[in-house]
Amino acid sequence: MKFCSACAAPVALKVPADDTRERFVCTECDTIHYQNPNIVVGTLPIWNIDGEVKVLLCKRAIEPRYGYWTLPAGFMENQETCRQAAQRETIEEAGANIELHELFSVLSVPHVDQVHLFYRATLIDTNYLAGTESLAVALFSEHEIPWEEIAFATVGQTLKFFFEDLKKVRTGGQFSLHEHDFYKSHRPE
Amino acid sequence: MKFCSACAAPVALKVPADDTRERFVCTECDTIHYQNPNIVVGTLPIWNIDGEVKVLLCKRAIEPRYGYWTLPAGFMENQETCRQAAQRETIEEAGANIELHELFSVLSVPHVDQVHLFYRATLIDTNYLAGTESLAVALFSEHEIPWEEIAFATVGQTLKFFFEDLKKVRTGGQFSLHEHDFYKSHRPE
Ligand SMILES: [Zn+2]
Ligand SMILES: [Zn+2]
Repeated sequence: MKFCSACAAPVALKVPADDTRERFVCTECDTIHYQNPNIVVGTLPIWNIDGEVKVLLCKRAIEPRYGYWTLPAGFMENQETCRQAAQRETIEEAGANIELHELFSVLSVPHVDQVHLFYRATLIDTNYLAGTESLAVALFSEHEIPWEEIAFATVGQTLKFFFEDLKKVRTGGQFSLHEHDFYKSHRPE
Repeated sequence: MKFCSACAAPVALKVPADDTRERFVCTECDTIHYQNPNIVVGTLPIWNIDGEVKVLLCKRAIEPRYGYWTLPAGFMENQETCRQAAQRETIEEAGANIELHELFSVLSVPHVDQVHLFYRATLIDTNYLAGTESLAVALFSEHEIPWEEIAFATVGQTLKFFFEDLKKVRTGGQFSLHEHDFYKSHRPE
């Protein structure tokens, strides 16, 4: 940020009165331009076939991580709820009809200023279809997942939480909410 | 937003290629200026005294809702995790030493482009002290809560979820995550 979006004057980094952090502040109109984390919302859509649980993954047709696999997810938009964002991204990226269940993972990624939320979901049918941001959409059982080709650490971690919980569910347990924080690593977010 | 923060040229509302929504786009350098929801993170700090559960509320010293009561909460900052934001806001607004527990409520407020997250917490001691954004900080049992003077609907709802869960916990149940969506009402957020 170099210029004020309200008046076009240059901005400068300084700590406003009653604040403790440097912000971009306009040198003319004094508007403070706050910058805050973004929310990424997605789903973990599952399909039961012959007693086997499969998850729906999308092969990315866009950067970052072009060609890698991800759960359907994207930036939450203004004027929508988390659940609406989850439904919208699943339709846009995977063309998938889902029943949305409860919030499953809440993942902070401070080095890219993001919080990722994934909802558990069930596919209503298998009429999914890659959207413009996906090269392919496919179902994977646990042993079929291309773990080395997962686009984002938050997606890999959510899948791991899911298959761990699934073992508990099969012995009378329940799915539960998982919180996890990611710090800077070699793998881009 | 009237001007581009990268080059100071005017912006115009238009739908970028491969997009479905109007964005502010620079008329000179074509930068797309996305606007997305903000995350508000807070805590529900509790204190057990003589078998009675009390919650810590702050009387707001700032607008909006000056003079109304709220749970300690505020905008999440870049470069921090949700849990760090919860701890920081509790210290800044209430000077309270807490043990942070699990995420308790996830509340979408689409008409103000916000998602509110509240963590359950336990006070470690009663050496709390109003910060610069609070006129007062005090403990309230369920029947003492000034329900008509609660600053935000998300705070009132989180308190209601808490006391409902507390009744379940006393009969062998557990606290659980609560999701709720708020739509436009007479009460400002
Ligand atoms: Zn300005
Ligand atoms: Zn520009």
